[in-house]
Amino acid sequence: MAILSPRGEDFPRWYQDVLAKAELADNGPVRGTMVIRPYGYAIWERMQADVDARIKATGAVNAYFPLFIPESYLRREAQHVEGFSPELAVVTHGGGKELEEPVVVRPTSETVIGEYMAKWTQSYRDLPLLLNQWANVVRWELRPRLFLRTSEFLWQEGHTAHVDQADAAAYARRIHLEVYREFMTSVLALPVLVGRKTAKERFAGAINTLTLEAMMGDGKALQMATSHELGQNFARAFDIDFLGADGQRHLAWTTSWGSSTRMIGGLIMAHGDDNGLRIPPRLAPVQVIVLPVRDDAALLERVSQITEGLRAAGVRVQLDARPGLSFGRRVTDAELKGIPVRVEIGPRDLAAGSVTLARRDTSEKITIPLDDVLARVPALLDDVQQNMYDAALAARDARTRDVSDLAEAVEAASVGFARLPWAAVGDGGEAKLAEESLTVRCIQRPDGTLPDSGDEPDLVCIVARAY
Amino acid sequence: MAILSPRGEDFPRWYQDVLAKAELADNGPVRGTMVIRPYGYAIWERMQADVDARIKATGAVNAYFPLFIPESYLRREAQHVEGFSPELAVVTHGGGKELEEPVVVRPTSETVIGEYMAKWTQSYRDLPLLLNQWANVVRWELRPRLFLRTSEFLWQEGHTAHVDQADAAAYARRIHLEVYREFMTSVLALPVLVGRKTAKERFAGAINTLTLEAMMGDGKALQMATSHELGQNFARAFDIDFLGADGQRHLAWTTSWGSSTRMIGGLIMAHGDDNGLRIPPRLAPVQVIVLPVRDDAALLERVSQITEGLRAAGVRVQLDARPGLSFGRRVTDAELKGIPVRVEIGPRDLAAGSVTLARRDTSEKITIPLDDVLARVPALLDDVQQNMYDAALAARDARTRDVSDLAEAVEAASVGFARLPWAAVGDGGEAKLAEESLTVRCIQRPDGTLPDSGDEPDLVCIVARAY
Ligand SMILES: [Zn+2]
Ligand SMILES: [Zn+2]
Repeated sequence: MAILSPRGEDFPRWYQDVLAKAELADNGPVRGTMVIRPYGYAIWERMQADVDARIKATGAVNAYFPLFIPESYLRREAQHVEGFSPELAVVTHGGGKELEEPVVVRPTSETVIGEYMAKWTQSYRDLPLLLNQWANVVRWELRPRLFLRTSEFLWQEGHTAHVDQADAAAYARRIHLEVYREFMTSVLALPVLVGRKTAKERFAGAINTLTLEAMMGDGKALQMATSHELGQNFARAFDIDFLGADGQRHLAWTTSWGSSTRMIGGLIMAHGDDNGLRIPPRLAPVQVIVLPVRDDAALLERVSQITEGLRAAGVRVQLDARPGLSFGRRVTDAELKGIPVRVEIGPRDLAAGSVTLARRDTSEKITIPLDDVLARVPALLDDVQQNMYDAALAARDARTRDVSDLAEAVEAASVGFARLPWAAVGDGGEAKLAEESLTVRCIQRPDGTLPDSGDEPDLVCIVARAY
Repeated sequence: MAILSPRGEDFPRWYQDVLAKAELADNGPVRGTMVIRPYGYAIWERMQADVDARIKATGAVNAYFPLFIPESYLRREAQHVEGFSPELAVVTHGGGKELEEPVVVRPTSETVIGEYMAKWTQSYRDLPLLLNQWANVVRWELRPRLFLRTSEFLWQEGHTAHVDQADAAAYARRIHLEVYREFMTSVLALPVLVGRKTAKERFAGAINTLTLEAMMGDGKALQMATSHELGQNFARAFDIDFLGADGQRHLAWTTSWGSSTRMIGGLIMAHGDDNGLRIPPRLAPVQVIVLPVRDDAALLERVSQITEGLRAAGVRVQLDARPGLSFGRRVTDAELKGIPVRVEIGPRDLAAGSVTLARRDTSEKITIPLDDVLARVPALLDDVQQNMYDAALAARDARTRDVSDLAEAVEAASVGFARLPWAAVGDGGEAKLAEESLTVRCIQRPDGTLPDSGDEPDLVCIVARAY
């Protein structure tokens, strides 16, 4: 029974099917907006809690800045208006009348946060000022795609000010590697490429943009998070200056960095398969689902015990004994939702004192003694987590080709990632790639690590189609 | 040194001073909007985490609905448009051009949530449908007051659908008592009055509104949270119907309930004093602050050990050894921020093997052996929590008068709460109170419990000025 369009035949349609059947999200009533359904939101809450704890561990604090920004703020930073202008939602009426100055719904909070950073930064003792915000932002989208590109989305945006360039650079790098990369590799089970953006792909106003790029199931790249060094450009536009230890006034050095509900899109597209979503156990809102094969009193009592036992052991577990839904339907549903492990048990199992553990990642099933469930499940979850990472890495490696010139890169990037010497792209190379709808996703060292500067010799770059 | 305007002389100005000096919030650049500063936001995060866990314990799940609502949705529910219309912020431009249909920035999500509840409710098996959302909402304010009335604020709004009235009523009551009242009494240390709103004060469209009312430091009432039974009115407007077990279609019975950043305003105004904020320990982002009297190496080493010891014991502790700030300034700052307990230690204490514990609630100081800190602090925090509740209750009782007619109620309510028989208000009584800027805050049983209906005999009501 084909619940979903096959992933290999029509990837975009498969993606839409997963969103609907796994009850992750729906279109909102205003074009381009999104309803995040409870299961999708539970995934976001777990992403948020994990990323938030990592951000706080770097010393940053959360705050909340207003949704509405005076239009004049966006004019202040000319470069930016050009970047966002067609994407702005503008409020012209409030309090029952036309506003004297229209206000813009934040496409990012950087201008308003810049204003307050300037106010709060007086002396070098106030630095570093490390702020983060979780909020909704709006960028009008004409071709929306749920979780990937919607007019409204949820994100965190960090904005920091530092006494010098070295401190700003070190902090942007720390957020990038210790927060984002660690979260993506160890929780999302996604092997992400780390690197610098080219000058062309850099964030407007940044002197350096760090990116994390993941490969999706169709071989395309998705930018999962970015960290920017803004040099003194942003501080100059917003007068973020301070009295130094030397008694002189100095402009601060700032950074910004963000991650969003787009990560949910990446999770689906990187790990999903023809049966639906696959969620790595460390992220999964429900790690284990317990499924009695039949509606039978003795069986229900036993599965309740198993469920409670697993819950007491710290496993995020749910019992699905919904009446009126066949065992097959419940299995299909658990698969669609990507629940990492199913505990399946029928009357015959009960009689034999055994139970079946089914893994979502490999579809493998093992029968074990009923009494071993509590002892076996945690290790099995660890194994699923590791295997999902390994499988994603193997899939990416299989679709990544080392090439030596642009022509080869164009060919390889039609089905996956092309890696080539950054020097081989040369002047005008990015323009040629753009003609083929390809971009340089990132520049990195040959060993895959983050270069300290774009001028290091022997740098390589990754070329791909991208979302 | 008077840091704040005296609370007894000019309460509104004292409130503004606390917001500024304790670094809780600031005005946003667009009139009526608010910047929640890191310390204020840390308080909100703790409120949110606690309330969220309690909401989830009742079986509700979180979701996220769009910020933008088609203008037509608000017209659908006529009663509501009248209620909100002058408060709406309207987006007329998006994507660089004028929109065909203007969209409204949500003043509440009830219309859009209603739309999806209708979609998701097919059979009685889908009920109860228990949804909650944490989000920002916008209601244009011409006379803003930070945390109490701002054009944008943060809140949670719950919306649920049930098969019958009894189930809806029981759930609204459960949220009201087990979530809101429990949180306010046991975490916020606020004695809240529980009751029903009068028909006049009821939420538009509700058949019953439950409220929690707290007394502020100036004797006025603040509505801290409400839960509404919406009968079938809302389900009728949004076609939330279902196929019953009897094979017939029925309209659902719905509820809604909310709490917001307004609770921070209530916290400040109920517990604050002339030295600033006072935060109950169970809520406090920082429960204990460790203050070395001087900048001295041996002392700093010892205070670091104490800090780490308390942290390991699960206390939310911070060390304030900021150079360049006198001990007095750091004490004043800790008082402004309402940190429940200070651990103060100087070189002489160190020599004597002693340390001073200072309580924020009573200003009491005790000197104890240094080695007893870990053993004494947790119990002291419990004591502060209980004492803050007791003190707030005593203050409320001292300003509450039992009266028997409207004239006496008007007099008593000029300085506090008046309690009188609901029957004594009579027809037209509320209109007379309104002339004196007074309202019936709630109707309750003589023993302070929640009545099952507004028709019970011997009900009493509370009359007061209110925010
Ligand atoms: Zn910028
Ligand atoms: Zn309504």
